[in-house]
Amino acid sequence: MTEASDPQANLVRADGRSPDELRTVTFERGWSAHAEGSALVSFGSTRVLCTASFTNGVPRWMNGKGRGWVTAEYAMLPRSTNTRNDRESVKGRIGGRTHEISRLIGRSLRAVVDTKGLGENTIQIDCDVLQADGGTRTAAITGAYLALADAVEWAREQKFIGQKAKPLIDTVSAVSVGIIDGTPMLDLAYVEDVRAETDMNVVATGRGLFVEVQGTAEGAPFDRRELDALLDLALAGTTELTRLQVGALAAGAEAAGA
Amino acid sequence: MTEASDPQANLVRADGRSPDELRTVTFERGWSAHAEGSALVSFGSTRVLCTASFTNGVPRWMNGKGRGWVTAEYAMLPRSTNTRNDRESVKGRIGGRTHEISRLIGRSLRAVVDTKGLGENTIQIDCDVLQADGGTRTAAITGAYLALADAVEWAREQKFIGQKAKPLIDTVSAVSVGIIDGTPMLDLAYVEDVRAETDMNVVATGRGLFVEVQGTAEGAPFDRRELDALLDLALAGTTELTRLQVGALAAGAEAAGA
Amino acid sequence: MTEASDPQANLVRADGRSPDELRTVTFERGWSAHAEGSALVSFGSTRVLCTASFTNGVPRWMNGKGRGWVTAEYAMLPRSTNTRNDRESVKGRIGGRTHEISRLIGRSLRAVVDTKGLGENTIQIDCDVLQADGGTRTAAITGAYLALADAVEWAREQKFIGQKAKPLIDTVSAVSVGIIDGTPMLDLAYVEDVRAETDMNVVATGRGLFVEVQGTAEGAPFDRRELDALLDLALAGTTELTRLQVGALAAGAEAAGA
Amino acid sequence: MTEASDPQANLVRADGRSPDELRTVTFERGWSAHAEGSALVSFGSTRVLCTASFTNGVPRWMNGKGRGWVTAEYAMLPRSTNTRNDRESVKGRIGGRTHEISRLIGRSLRAVVDTKGLGENTIQIDCDVLQADGGTRTAAITGAYLALADAVEWAREQKFIGQKAKPLIDTVSAVSVGIIDGTPMLDLAYVEDVRAETDMNVVATGRGLFVEVQGTAEGAPFDRRELDALLDLALAGTTELTRLQVGALAAGAEAAGA
Amino acid sequence: MTEASDPQANLVRADGRSPDELRTVTFERGWSAHAEGSALVSFGSTRVLCTASFTNGVPRWMNGKGRGWVTAEYAMLPRSTNTRNDRESVKGRIGGRTHEISRLIGRSLRAVVDTKGLGENTIQIDCDVLQADGGTRTAAITGAYLALADAVEWAREQKFIGQKAKPLIDTVSAVSVGIIDGTPMLDLAYVEDVRAETDMNVVATGRGLFVEVQGTAEGAPFDRRELDALLDLALAGTTELTRLQVGALAAGAEAAGA
Amino acid sequence: MTEASDPQANLVRADGRSPDELRTVTFERGWSAHAEGSALVSFGSTRVLCTASFTNGVPRWMNGKGRGWVTAEYAMLPRSTNTRNDRESVKGRIGGRTHEISRLIGRSLRAVVDTKGLGENTIQIDCDVLQADGGTRTAAITGAYLALADAVEWAREQKFIGQKAKPLIDTVSAVSVGIIDGTPMLDLAYVEDVRAETDMNVVATGRGLFVEVQGTAEGAPFDRRELDALLDLALAGTTELTRLQVGALAAGAEAAGA
Repeated sequence: MTEASDPQANLVRADGRSPDELRTVTFERGWSAHAEGSALVSFGSTRVLCTASFTNGVPRWMNGKGRGWVTAEYAMLPRSTNTRNDRESVKGRIGGRTHEISRLIGRSLRAVVDTKGLGENTIQIDCDVLQADGGTRTAAITGAYLALADAVEWAREQKFIGQKAKPLIDTVSAVSVGIIDGTPMLDLAYVEDVRAETDMNVVATGRGLFVEVQGTAEGAPFDRRELDALLDLALAGTTELTRLQVGALAAGAEAAGA
Repeated sequence: MTEASDPQANLVRADGRSPDELRTVTFERGWSAHAEGSALVSFGSTRVLCTASFTNGVPRWMNGKGRGWVTAEYAMLPRSTNTRNDRESVKGRIGGRTHEISRLIGRSLRAVVDTKGLGENTIQIDCDVLQADGGTRTAAITGAYLALADAVEWAREQKFIGQKAKPLIDTVSAVSVGIIDGTPMLDLAYVEDVRAETDMNVVATGRGLFVEVQGTAEGAPFDRRELDALLDLALAGTTELTRLQVGALAAGAEAAGA
Repeated sequence: MTEASDPQANLVRADGRSPDELRTVTFERGWSAHAEGSALVSFGSTRVLCTASFTNGVPRWMNGKGRGWVTAEYAMLPRSTNTRNDRESVKGRIGGRTHEISRLIGRSLRAVVDTKGLGENTIQIDCDVLQADGGTRTAAITGAYLALADAVEWAREQKFIGQKAKPLIDTVSAVSVGIIDGTPMLDLAYVEDVRAETDMNVVATGRGLFVEVQGTAEGAPFDRRELDALLDLALAGTTELTRLQVGALAAGAEAAGA
Repeated sequence: MTEASDPQANLVRADGRSPDELRTVTFERGWSAHAEGSALVSFGSTRVLCTASFTNGVPRWMNGKGRGWVTAEYAMLPRSTNTRNDRESVKGRIGGRTHEISRLIGRSLRAVVDTKGLGENTIQIDCDVLQADGGTRTAAITGAYLALADAVEWAREQKFIGQKAKPLIDTVSAVSVGIIDGTPMLDLAYVEDVRAETDMNVVATGRGLFVEVQGTAEGAPFDRRELDALLDLALAGTTELTRLQVGALAAGAEAAGA
Repeated sequence: MTEASDPQANLVRADGRSPDELRTVTFERGWSAHAEGSALVSFGSTRVLCTASFTNGVPRWMNGKGRGWVTAEYAMLPRSTNTRNDRESVKGRIGGRTHEISRLIGRSLRAVVDTKGLGENTIQIDCDVLQADGGTRTAAITGAYLALADAVEWAREQKFIGQKAKPLIDTVSAVSVGIIDGTPMLDLAYVEDVRAETDMNVVATGRGLFVEVQGTAEGAPFDRRELDALLDLALAGTTELTRLQVGALAAGAEAAGA
Repeated sequence: MTEASDPQANLVRADGRSPDELRTVTFERGWSAHAEGSALVSFGSTRVLCTASFTNGVPRWMNGKGRGWVTAEYAMLPRSTNTRNDRESVKGRIGGRTHEISRLIGRSLRAVVDTKGLGENTIQIDCDVLQADGGTRTAAITGAYLALADAVEWAREQKFIGQKAKPLIDTVSAVSVGIIDGTPMLDLAYVEDVRAETDMNVVATGRGLFVEVQGTAEGAPFDRRELDALLDLALAGTTELTRLQVGALAAGAEAAGA
């Protein structure tokens, strides 16, 4: 994944990675004994527990349309971060960042779901950050896809969805990229994230199409050339993540399941 | 702003615009008798009242750093939309979309603010949608910049900030773009927005740098070529919006002010 | 409307009005493109956007009684006032004053509605204060009547209510009165309101009957003679407001409508 | 208190009262062992426990002005009424009616308080309806005055306020009046209240001055003559209530106190 | 109820009681004119108003099972205690202690209810502490049983439950015990409660069986011998409370009822 | 731990355990990279992540007393259970059960803490149930003790507490017991818990003293003999848990720490 044309690609990062290198990514499918699909995903020290809960029926506003629904909620444990955050349940309300990420995860998954194939069933995704070290939303999306895939298989086995239905039309994964000291870098750890001038999260399908592109100038605004470099780097990252997801799913049905 | 290379640029939209044409954009500076800066902005039928409230002092966590703060809140009147929405005050909580847009407006404005130049003062932006017809967040950012600029001038006159301080390092505006039936289009009205396969909001500075790029596949995921076309179209739009903002600000100090 | 018997009627107020004179009152019917009825009402610098949203059906507790329902909500934009107020949506709850005024507007309108004539339909009134300079509740009631009347006409055209039904049995308007330095004054602006020893809001029908009388001793308690003078002044004010409402409604159906 | 000129004054009500007669009114001063002042007040079957809690200091916004503060909260026990109401604590928010009455009680008491005489101290009034049969707000105000008076005496004994200070400049009481089948009636019980065409609550001082006048057309709007009759009747009622309050306070210091 | 084997049983407490003696316990059945069952219970200065509200039907999750439901809510008036507590309705949420006690009361009553005997009806118990001096939860349970029993009788008279149904299979009462300066003591008043090293609440049926045992080491942990002494003392207390409950119920149907 | 006198001790449970046998208990100290102390505790399939967050200073009401503070919060992930539960953050309020358990954990830990030894520092415990299979509160207390002990050691190393201070005066653990089909059983799994007639949670110190005893009759009330048998069984369980805790702590400082 090195880019010969970029002299900075040879720079070494705090954890020894090159700028275009992902952290170690692992998936533990079937982590939860109860959920219809689940995966504990790690992007380096970032660990997110993703569960998929399958229920018959859809929200009232979708009744009778012959389509299913996939939705997601994201949250962080109070001490998943370096200093403790108050619980949103104790504060009595959900913060803007939590809302934003929950919505992003839901949209990202729905982009690869053919809701007709699901029938009138709902899959509720929960992504709970057990430990945070940057990139929690991208790890969540990437892990949630596995939980979703396992829940779909479970539903097929239970005959809640048709044997020939293909509710999943592609895979989906996500990665962060950013510019640090002028160098575009892939999959930022927390210490990198706080230093980045520009920060972008890219969600892409296994076929290399964009689902979401969210770039933010944390420091100085960025120009078109920088944006292009970040998009290149991100697509290389999601290509690698797709390979890892496919490998995890191929590792045997025995790894999954409720 | 026509693009000769795109045969679809000659298409005509429901309201008679060409694909790369903004709706009629107007600004009424000084709409509010009370606020230190204000503008009623219209993007076609979308009307947003933007006010800027200047107060001495900063939130506690910023005390003593010699820097100011700019923050924003966005909301819609219950019948600004085609069917009435319940008030968030009555529901007792802010929805995810509202949170998301409020945060976007705040980040967008801060990208062109040198907080040292503000001194330890706070400018609170309020963007209230009086009538919605698509693009409320982009109209809000574009109008909020004018309210902010007028509040900064007010503060300078009141000697709350230094006569030589330059808290505003650039202008900022925003526009939506989307792909409809395969054609990239600028500044979507509501009927277009609901039909768009891909929807992108771009915030850019007067110098043409990106502050935020948020692209979402509402229907099918999009490829790199489509993304590039949308970015081109958006930058052409923000260039035009910048021209209109500069014109409105030049229209005389007498138009503004509390 | 001068009262020869009162020597103080010749006093001149800060804005040049005589004690028994209303501020300039204007109505912009059909301000909202979406609502079934709407009016932007001004009492001097006080500006309130009133919309009427018509929906088929009534709240569950009214089902099957053959009667309609009219209800109202009032709110202020955060910077409608001289210093900014926190949003009630952000605080997560509605304040007592907001509750009180919303209930007052609803009761006032229902006093002139024959709910049988509405059929089982609901009209939801929203009164949002865009700019406040005293008398927001009285302007809201006076403008809301116009929005309500236009929504009723819309419903008749849509055949949601009978062609011969008369759901509106009278008109309704409201005005504030108060005693300042011993002189009863009509339609108090904010600077007057804060100085008033006694403050009264009166809601009356076009036929001159009382719907609500709410008098409060802000400073010293008041005697019966003062109360009588205030009631006289208020009825003169609502008589004039009725005349203006009737004029606005007569100004042509073309002014109204969704 | 009979009104010779009104033939209907001879009518007999469900509980045997004449139209201008109060229900049996009783006060149990010192009902609470803990509060600095308290009274259990009954207007017929309506029973309200009023406590006054004295604390040194005032809310932050009043600091350093040398003035005290009196505020009030009203609530109903869930089964104080004929059918059970859900608790506002369980619903997580205060209803509009509760807010409205709490504010009314606070304003009514403050109308007879010279806050300079209190020094920088706060008296918090709580009025909890143990049993409701109409007129809970008027009973609450009438009883709260006694609790307030006892708390002031307690504070004087504790030397928290000056020995010569006169924080209470008058007494205050309240009563409801209404028109039923065309007859003005005093102190409505619940069965009467629901039948009244017009309903008015009047708060007046011992000297016969008005503090609050709140009249509402529940059915048909009312004319000036009816309003005048109601005001006459109400003032006769508060005169009688004042007599009873004075008697209760004279019944000996031994009846009061924590 | 003296225990010859315990030399400390001769100790005298602040209010003159011996360690194994209850405070004066009284019940006023039928205190509420509206509730289907009610009792004002006193354990010394602790006074709790208990009401039982009977309604036809059960919560949705119990529909069609042929069983009834009994549930309870507990709350304290703000000035029932020595210093005023903010209302939970004003704070917008129920505290942990309130939740805990409400749940305890509900479980305790359900332990003596045969829900089949109730039919598909609900009895909602409300326990509102009017004055607190320790032991409010035990007084609440003991009084609530009487309110429940009266509501069951009322329902039988109304023929809402069968004439031969026995929904109440036993009586239930509760008492606190604690160790103070090494001595186990019964029915702690507030001044004792705050000094107790160990504090236990015991709920038992009239037949002497345990429903709940909740022991907490407030100071030093306690050993098995101490636990046994507390359990002995508590059962002696509930035996006496049962005797008093039975007496109150025998005092005549005329004492009870809506 | 067999009890020869109990013939039922030879019964075999669903998972092969004897009635007086704990499930497999494991501790992973130092699971969290961020927290000052942490342990992932398992009681069979029940898995709870316990973290201890150390901060300098105490809540305002404890300032200047030279004592520290230990507090705890408990929560369940939405799909830790067999069917998904809505998040309390989304519902906007904490449920009664959550409150109850959080308070229990806090009290249990404080019973073995000498707050003087902590100095004016706070340790916040968080117990998040990742997977639930009965006994989550007892696993939480048992694991939280390890997190607390590690945080105390961390603070000693950081010199935030004195080198000779002994803030922990004992260890603490907890276990559930219950009666199923007449047999007392130790450490109930979920399938057992729902069948238990009586359910008791016992918290005890390493020295065998009781901190909390909470017994509840879920079905029929229980007699003194049953209560005694449950207490015997529970103390045998906490004795074994103490041995496992001591072993885990002895397994080397290298296992712990941030």
